[in-house]
Amino acid sequence: MKILVLNGPNLSRLGQREPEIYGTQTLADVEQLVTERGKTLGCTIRCLQSNHEGQLIDWIEREGQASDAIIINPGALAHTSYALADALRGSGKPVIEVHISNVHRREPFRHQLVTAASAVGVITGLGVQGYVLALEFVTKR
Amino acid sequence: MKILVLNGPNLSRLGQREPEIYGTQTLADVEQLVTERGKTLGCTIRCLQSNHEGQLIDWIEREGQASDAIIINPGALAHTSYALADALRGSGKPVIEVHISNVHRREPFRHQLVTAASAVGVITGLGVQGYVLALEFVTKR
Amino acid sequence: MKILVLNGPNLSRLGQREPEIYGTQTLADVEQLVTERGKTLGCTIRCLQSNHEGQLIDWIEREGQASDAIIINPGALAHTSYALADALRGSGKPVIEVHISNVHRREPFRHQLVTAASAVGVITGLGVQGYVLALEFVTKR
Amino acid sequence: MKILVLNGPNLSRLGQREPEIYGTQTLADVEQLVTERGKTLGCTIRCLQSNHEGQLIDWIEREGQASDAIIINPGALAHTSYALADALRGSGKPVIEVHISNVHRREPFRHQLVTAASAVGVITGLGVQGYVLALEFVTKR
Amino acid sequence: MKILVLNGPNLSRLGQREPEIYGTQTLADVEQLVTERGKTLGCTIRCLQSNHEGQLIDWIEREGQASDAIIINPGALAHTSYALADALRGSGKPVIEVHISNVHRREPFRHQLVTAASAVGVITGLGVQGYVLALEFVTKR
Amino acid sequence: MKILVLNGPNLSRLGQREPEIYGTQTLADVEQLVTERGKTLGCTIRCLQSNHEGQLIDWIEREGQASDAIIINPGALAHTSYALADALRGSGKPVIEVHISNVHRREPFRHQLVTAASAVGVITGLGVQGYVLALEFVTKR
Amino acid sequence: MKILVLNGPNLSRLGQREPEIYGTQTLADVEQLVTERGKTLGCTIRCLQSNHEGQLIDWIEREGQASDAIIINPGALAHTSYALADALRGSGKPVIEVHISNVHRREPFRHQLVTAASAVGVITGLGVQGYVLALEFVTKR
Amino acid sequence: MKILVLNGPNLSRLGQREPEIYGTQTLADVEQLVTERGKTLGCTIRCLQSNHEGQLIDWIEREGQASDAIIINPGALAHTSYALADALRGSGKPVIEVHISNVHRREPFRHQLVTAASAVGVITGLGVQGYVLALEFVTKR
Amino acid sequence: MKILVLNGPNLSRLGQREPEIYGTQTLADVEQLVTERGKTLGCTIRCLQSNHEGQLIDWIEREGQASDAIIINPGALAHTSYALADALRGSGKPVIEVHISNVHRREPFRHQLVTAASAVGVITGLGVQGYVLALEFVTKR
Amino acid sequence: MKILVLNGPNLSRLGQREPEIYGTQTLADVEQLVTERGKTLGCTIRCLQSNHEGQLIDWIEREGQASDAIIINPGALAHTSYALADALRGSGKPVIEVHISNVHRREPFRHQLVTAASAVGVITGLGVQGYVLALEFVTKR
Amino acid sequence: MKILVLNGPNLSRLGQREPEIYGTQTLADVEQLVTERGKTLGCTIRCLQSNHEGQLIDWIEREGQASDAIIINPGALAHTSYALADALRGSGKPVIEVHISNVHRREPFRHQLVTAASAVGVITGLGVQGYVLALEFVTKR
Amino acid sequence: MKILVLNGPNLSRLGQREPEIYGTQTLADVEQLVTERGKTLGCTIRCLQSNHEGQLIDWIEREGQASDAIIINPGALAHTSYALADALRGSGKPVIEVHISNVHRREPFRHQLVTAASAVGVITGLGVQGYVLALEFVTKR
Repeated sequence: MKILVLNGPNLSRLGQREPEIYGTQTLADVEQLVTERGKTLGCTIRCLQSNHEGQLIDWIEREGQASDAIIINPGALAHTSYALADALRGSGKPVIEVHISNVHRREPFRHQLVTAASAVGVITGLGVQGYVLALEFVTKR
Repeated sequence: MKILVLNGPNLSRLGQREPEIYGTQTLADVEQLVTERGKTLGCTIRCLQSNHEGQLIDWIEREGQASDAIIINPGALAHTSYALADALRGSGKPVIEVHISNVHRREPFRHQLVTAASAVGVITGLGVQGYVLALEFVTKR
Repeated sequence: MKILVLNGPNLSRLGQREPEIYGTQTLADVEQLVTERGKTLGCTIRCLQSNHEGQLIDWIEREGQASDAIIINPGALAHTSYALADALRGSGKPVIEVHISNVHRREPFRHQLVTAASAVGVITGLGVQGYVLALEFVTKR
Repeated sequence: MKILVLNGPNLSRLGQREPEIYGTQTLADVEQLVTERGKTLGCTIRCLQSNHEGQLIDWIEREGQASDAIIINPGALAHTSYALADALRGSGKPVIEVHISNVHRREPFRHQLVTAASAVGVITGLGVQGYVLALEFVTKR
Repeated sequence: MKILVLNGPNLSRLGQREPEIYGTQTLADVEQLVTERGKTLGCTIRCLQSNHEGQLIDWIEREGQASDAIIINPGALAHTSYALADALRGSGKPVIEVHISNVHRREPFRHQLVTAASAVGVITGLGVQGYVLALEFVTKR
Repeated sequence: MKILVLNGPNLSRLGQREPEIYGTQTLADVEQLVTERGKTLGCTIRCLQSNHEGQLIDWIEREGQASDAIIINPGALAHTSYALADALRGSGKPVIEVHISNVHRREPFRHQLVTAASAVGVITGLGVQGYVLALEFVTKR
Repeated sequence: MKILVLNGPNLSRLGQREPEIYGTQTLADVEQLVTERGKTLGCTIRCLQSNHEGQLIDWIEREGQASDAIIINPGALAHTSYALADALRGSGKPVIEVHISNVHRREPFRHQLVTAASAVGVITGLGVQGYVLALEFVTKR
Repeated sequence: MKILVLNGPNLSRLGQREPEIYGTQTLADVEQLVTERGKTLGCTIRCLQSNHEGQLIDWIEREGQASDAIIINPGALAHTSYALADALRGSGKPVIEVHISNVHRREPFRHQLVTAASAVGVITGLGVQGYVLALEFVTKR
Repeated sequence: MKILVLNGPNLSRLGQREPEIYGTQTLADVEQLVTERGKTLGCTIRCLQSNHEGQLIDWIEREGQASDAIIINPGALAHTSYALADALRGSGKPVIEVHISNVHRREPFRHQLVTAASAVGVITGLGVQGYVLALEFVTKR
Repeated sequence: MKILVLNGPNLSRLGQREPEIYGTQTLADVEQLVTERGKTLGCTIRCLQSNHEGQLIDWIEREGQASDAIIINPGALAHTSYALADALRGSGKPVIEVHISNVHRREPFRHQLVTAASAVGVITGLGVQGYVLALEFVTKR
Repeated sequence: MKILVLNGPNLSRLGQREPEIYGTQTLADVEQLVTERGKTLGCTIRCLQSNHEGQLIDWIEREGQASDAIIINPGALAHTSYALADALRGSGKPVIEVHISNVHRREPFRHQLVTAASAVGVITGLGVQGYVLALEFVTKR
Repeated sequence: MKILVLNGPNLSRLGQREPEIYGTQTLADVEQLVTERGKTLGCTIRCLQSNHEGQLIDWIEREGQASDAIIINPGALAHTSYALADALRGSGKPVIEVHISNVHRREPFRHQLVTAASAVGVITGLGVQGYVLALEFVTKR
C-alpha cells in the first residue's frame, strides 16, 4: 500500500513557527514518525511539502495516481482553496485531512474547511499524532 | 486511566438510522469496540448515551470529575449547544469530539461545530474508528 | 392504523398562554378532538407532550417505531433543533408538522422551520384544526 | 359560501412539470377535485390560474371582493412578491396559502414565504389534498 | 429544428436604451441576424419579446413545447424571477441564457443569475453575437 | 408640458385598502387632484394604473417617449423590480418616485427602494400631496 | 405657524462642497428661499445649522418645543444617528426630512435612513426645492 | 411575596468552573445569599437549578404560577432558547434575567439575549450581587 | 467615595419623551433620587447630562479621573459610539451602564450595546431604579 | 491574429476528472480542437495550462503582451483570485472567460466569478464548444 | 506651506490611556514632534484636538480652507463617521489619515475605515512616527 | 541592518498596468529608489518580486530569517491569502505592509487586508514613497 503525505504552506517551518500552537517537532520529525509507523503497517510513505498551491495540485495529479490514499495538511489553504479541493476530489483517492492545531478554537476564518468537503474525514487538534492516526485509519480501511 | 465516552441525541439508533450515512454498526457495537480497545490500553471506559442536552451536561459535571478524559459525539447538538460547550470547557478535562460522518461535506448547518471550541481536537468522517482513534490519542497523551 | 401525536415545549399551557395567539382550547381539548376524530377514521391515537427536547426524541425513537405516522407540533424547537429534525428524519415514518399560529407572520426567528425539512408537509395558522387536518391527511394517504 | 381558488405561475403545467415533485394530477384534476368537494360542502368554487403576477392581483381585487375566502397557491411568487402579499392583505378576506410540495425541504430560496404573512395559515407538502384541506378549513371556520 | 428565441423586459428598446452598454443594434436587427443565421443552419427561428414575466412563462409553456431548444435573454428578470426559472426548468428543453452586456462587471445585483440554474449554459458580454453563438451551439449539440 | 403619472400594483384600491396607512382618498380622487393641479400649471397629465409590472414597463416605453417627465408610485414593486428600474432609467426622462406612506418606518423590506436609483428624487410619506409636490417640482425644473 | 429648519453637518459649505452633487446655491441662499416662501405662506421660519449632532439634539429639544413643525436635513447623520432619530421622535412634532441629492442612487451606506423612521415623510433628490416643498406640505397639512 | 429563582445549565458548578470569570462563590452560597436577603425583605424564595431546558420550562409552568416574580439566570440557553423565552413570556409574571459575567464583553454569540425579550429587565456583569439587586427590584416594584 | 453619573442624548427630556417607555420621572427626579441614595451610602454624586458625544468624552476624561466609579446611561449612543466606548475603557474606572427601558425587547438596533464592552456590567429595563441599583453595587464593591 | 488560450488548475486532468461534469475529452483534445479551428480562422493559437496561479499571471504578463486576445478557463481560481483578475485587467487585452460546466447550477461558491469582471464576456456550460465559440467571437470582433 | 494636524476623540489622553497599545508619549509630545519636524521642512503646523465630531468638522471647514494639507487621526470616529468623511472629501485638500496602532489586528469593527475613502492615503501602526511620515509625505508631494 | 523588500503579483508590471491608479514608475525604479535610500541609511536592501504566493512564502521563510525586517506589498494577495499572513507572522520579524494606491477608496474587496494583521503597520495610498517611508520607519525603530 502506497500513501502520499502532503504538507502545505508554512509547514516547512514546523517546530520553529509559533511552537505554543504547533509544538516543537519539525517537519522532518513528523515525516520520520509517519514513515516509521508506515513501515510497521507495511506501507510505503511518500512525504512532500510545498508552500505552492499549484505544486500541491501537481503532486495530487501526478503522485496521487500512483497512491492508494492521500493524507494532507493543507495549512491555511484549507480555508480558501477551491482549486485544491477540486484536485483532491478529482483524484478519486481516499483523502484524510489533518490539522495539527484545533482550528475550531482559533480565529473565525479557520473554522471553514473548504478542502474537507473532498475528504473522507478530518482530524484536527491532535498534534502530530493526527498524521499517525490518519495513517492507521487508511491502512485499516 | 478512566475515560468517559458520551453519545448525544439519536446515536442510540446507530445502525438503524440512515445507514448509508452512519454505517450499520449499532451503538452497542461501538461501545463494545471502545471498551475492548480500552482494556488493551489499560483504561476503564464508561459509556453513556442520552438524547437530552441536560443529561449530557449532568454527566459531564458528575462523571466528568472522576474521569481523566472525555470522548464525546454530541450529535446535532454540536452545531448549536453553547450550554454543552460551556459544560465541556468547564470540566477542565481533555475532550475529544468525534463525528461518525464527515460533517464538512453535509448540509451547511453541520459545518459549524460550536462544541469543538471546547475540545482538544476533533475527528470527523472516520466512522466508528473515530472513537477508537480518539481513545488511542488520549491514552498516549 | 396507529398515529403518534407529539406536542413540544409550552403546549401544555395551551388555552392559558397568550390566548390571543393560540386560542382558548387546552391541550386536553386538542387531544380529545384528535382522538375522537381518530376513532371515526379507525385510528389509534397516542398523544404525548413534553417540554424536553430529549424526551421528544426518546418518544420518536421508542413510540415512533410502533406508529404508522407522526403528527408533531414542536413549538419553538421547530426553529432551532437539528437534533429533533434528525430524530424525525431517522424515524423513517411520515411526519406532519403542525403549528397553531401562522409562524410566517410573527417574529422573523419563527420563519425558519428546521424540523420541517424532515416532514412530508406542514400546516400552520389553522388553529387546532391543523391537527385534525393532519390526521385526515395521513389516514387518506 | 363563495371561495376563490387561485393558482399562480407554472401551475398550469401541473402533472407534466417535474411529476416527481408535484405529482401526476393536472390542474384540471385539482380544480375538479376542489369543485366537487366544494359542492358537498355547499360552496361555490371559482378556480382561476395565471402566470402573471398582475393578473392574480387583478383577480384578488375584482373577484376577491365577491368571495368569502381565498385559497391561493402563488407558486414561486410566494418567495418574492410583496405586491401579491399586499393585494392579499388588502382584500380583507381570509386567505389560505397552499403549496403542493414541502417548500421547507427544497432550495433555501423556497423557505421564505413572503405572501404567507398575509394569510390565515399555510399548508405545504400535502400534495393536491392541501387544497381540499384548505377548503374544509375555510368552510368550517 | 425549431428554436424559440425569447427576450424579456426592456429589450424592445435595444439600440435606444443606454447604447454605451447595450450597443446600437435594435431588437429587430438582432431577430433578423438570428433568423438569417438560423436559415443557414437549417433551423426555424421563432422570436418573441415581452416586458411581462407572465407572458414569457406563457410562451415557454405553449411555444416551448413545440421547440427543440430555447434561447432566452431574461433581462433584469434573470436576477430575481424564480417563477421564470421554474418555467424554464419545467419545459424540459435545453435552454441557453444570453446577456448582451457582461453582467459580472456591472452592479452587484446583476451578478446573481437565478434563471441560469435552469439553463444548459450562459453567454454574457459578447453583445448581440451572444445570440448567434447560442444558436450555433444548440444546433451542433 | 406632458406628464405621465403611473401607479403600480394595488393602488387601484386606494381608499379601500388599509386606510389607516394609505388614507381614504381613492385613486380617482388622486388622479383628479393631479390633473387639476396640472391644468393650473399648464400641463397635460396622463394617468395610468396597472397591477402588472410588464404593463408599467410597456407604458414607460410607449407613453414615456411622448412625455416630458414621469411621476411613478411603483407600489411594492419599488422594493424588488430591477426590470422596472431599468425601464425608468432607459426612458431618459426625469422620473420622480412617490410613496404615499413613509416606507422608512414600515417593515424592513420597504426600506430598500431599487427603483429610486433611476429617479431624480423621491417623496415618501406626504400622502397624496406627494403627487402634487412632484408635479410642481417637475414643472418648475 | 412657526417652522424650525435644521441643517446638519457639512451643509454650511453648500454651494462650495461638491457642487456637481449638491448644486451651487449656498446655505444662505437656501435659508433665504425658505424664509421668503414662509412669509408668503404666513409662517415664521427659524433656520439653524450645526456640524454637531449634540447641538442639533439640543435645538430639537429647546427650539422644537416652540415650533409647529421641523424640517431637517441631517446630512450624513441620517445614516447612523439613532440619537438624532430619538430626539426627533421625542419632540412630538411633525418632521419632514429633506436630502438635496438622491441618496438612493449614491453609495450603499446612504440608502439607509435611520432618522426617516421618526419623520412624517422624506423628500430626496429634488435639490433645494425639497425644502420649499416640505414647507408647503407642513403648512397645508 | 413569593419569588422563584431559577438557574440554568452549568450554574451548578459555580465557584468551580472558570472562577476568573464567574467568581469563587458556589451556587449554594448564592442561594443562601438570596434567601437571607429575601427574609429581610419579607419574601419567600424558592431556588431551583437544572441543566435541562425542559426542566426549567416545567418549573416556570408549575412553580411560576404560584410565584409573584421570577429571577432567572438561563446560562448559555439565554443565547438560543426560544422555547425558554416563550415559557417566560407565557408565565405572565415579571421576569428579571441575571448574568453573573458581563456577556457584552465576551464572545459574540453571548451578545444576543433571546430570553431577555421576555423579561422586564436584565442585570449583567454585577456578579452574584446581580441576584440580590434583582430581588430588591422586584420587591420594591 | 465619588461617583460620576452621566446621562447621554435625550435623557434631558426624561418624563416628557415617550413616557409609556421611559416613565414619568424627570432627569431632575432621577438625579435627586441618586444623590439622596448616595448620601445615605456616604458617596458624593456628580450628575451631568449632555446631548453631545464629545462632551461626554470630555467629562469622562476630566471628571472621570477624580471619580471612583462611573454610572452612565449613554442613550442611543450605546448602540454606535466606539469613541465613547474607548473613553470609558480608557478611564480605567469601574463603569456601570444603565438603560431605563429593556433594550433587548425593543428594535433590533438597540440589542447591540457597543459601550457595554467597556463596562463592569449593565442594568436594563429596571426603570430609574437601575441607577440606584448601580450605585448600591459600586459602593458595595 | 495571435490568441493565448490559458487553462488553470485541474484542467490538465480533463476527461479523467469527474467526466459526468466535465465530459470525456482531454485537454489535448480541447487544445487540438481550438488550434484547428484557429487555423481555419487564420489565427495562431498558443495553448498553456498550469495549476499555479502565479504561473498563469506570469504568462498573462509575458505571453499576453504578444497576443491579440486571451481566452481563459481559470478553473476554481475564478471564484477567489483577485490577483488573476488584476493581471487580466492589467493586460489591456480583450479577455473571454470560459467554463466547461454551468457554474450557476453547481455549489454556491461557484456562482461568484471574480475574474469575470476583467473579461469582455463569459461563456459557461457549453462544454468544450465554449472555447471554440470564444475563439470565433474574438476573431470576428 | 501650512499643515492642519487634527486629532479626534480620546487622543487627548495619549500616553495615559492603554499605553501598551498607544505608547507612552503624550499628545503634547506628538504635537511638539510634528511641529519641530515641520520647522525643518519649512511648514507651519497647526495642531488641534477635540473629542467632538462636530468640532472636527468645524475646523476642517474653517481651518482647512487656509491649509495646504490635512493630517488627521480621527480616533474611533474613523470607523463610523460618514459626516467626518464628507467634511474631509468636501475640503478639497489632500488628507493623510494616521492611526497610532495597527487597526487591522485589533477588534473587527476597527478594520473598517470609512474616513479613509476621503484620504490620499493611510498610515497605521507606526506609532507617533506615523504623523512625522505623513508630514514628510505631504511636504514632498 | 538587512531589509527584505517583497513585491507580490502584478507589481512586475508597475508603470505599465493602469498607470492612472499605480503611477508611471516601474518596479525597477522603485527598487532602485529603495536601495539608494537604504544606502544612505546604512541598510542592505534585498528586493524580490513574484507572482506566486508560494514563492513569496518560500522567500519569507528562507530570506526572511537573514533579514532584520520585511517590507511587503502583497498586491491582491493582501485581501485573501491567509497562508501569506501565516508566513509573515511566523517569520518573527517586523513587517511593514505597503500599498501604492489607497485600497480603502477602491472596490469593497480591497478594504479587507488579511495580511495586515501580521504586520507592525500599513502604509496605503502614498505611492512609491510608501516603500521609502516604510524603510525609514524600520531603520529608526
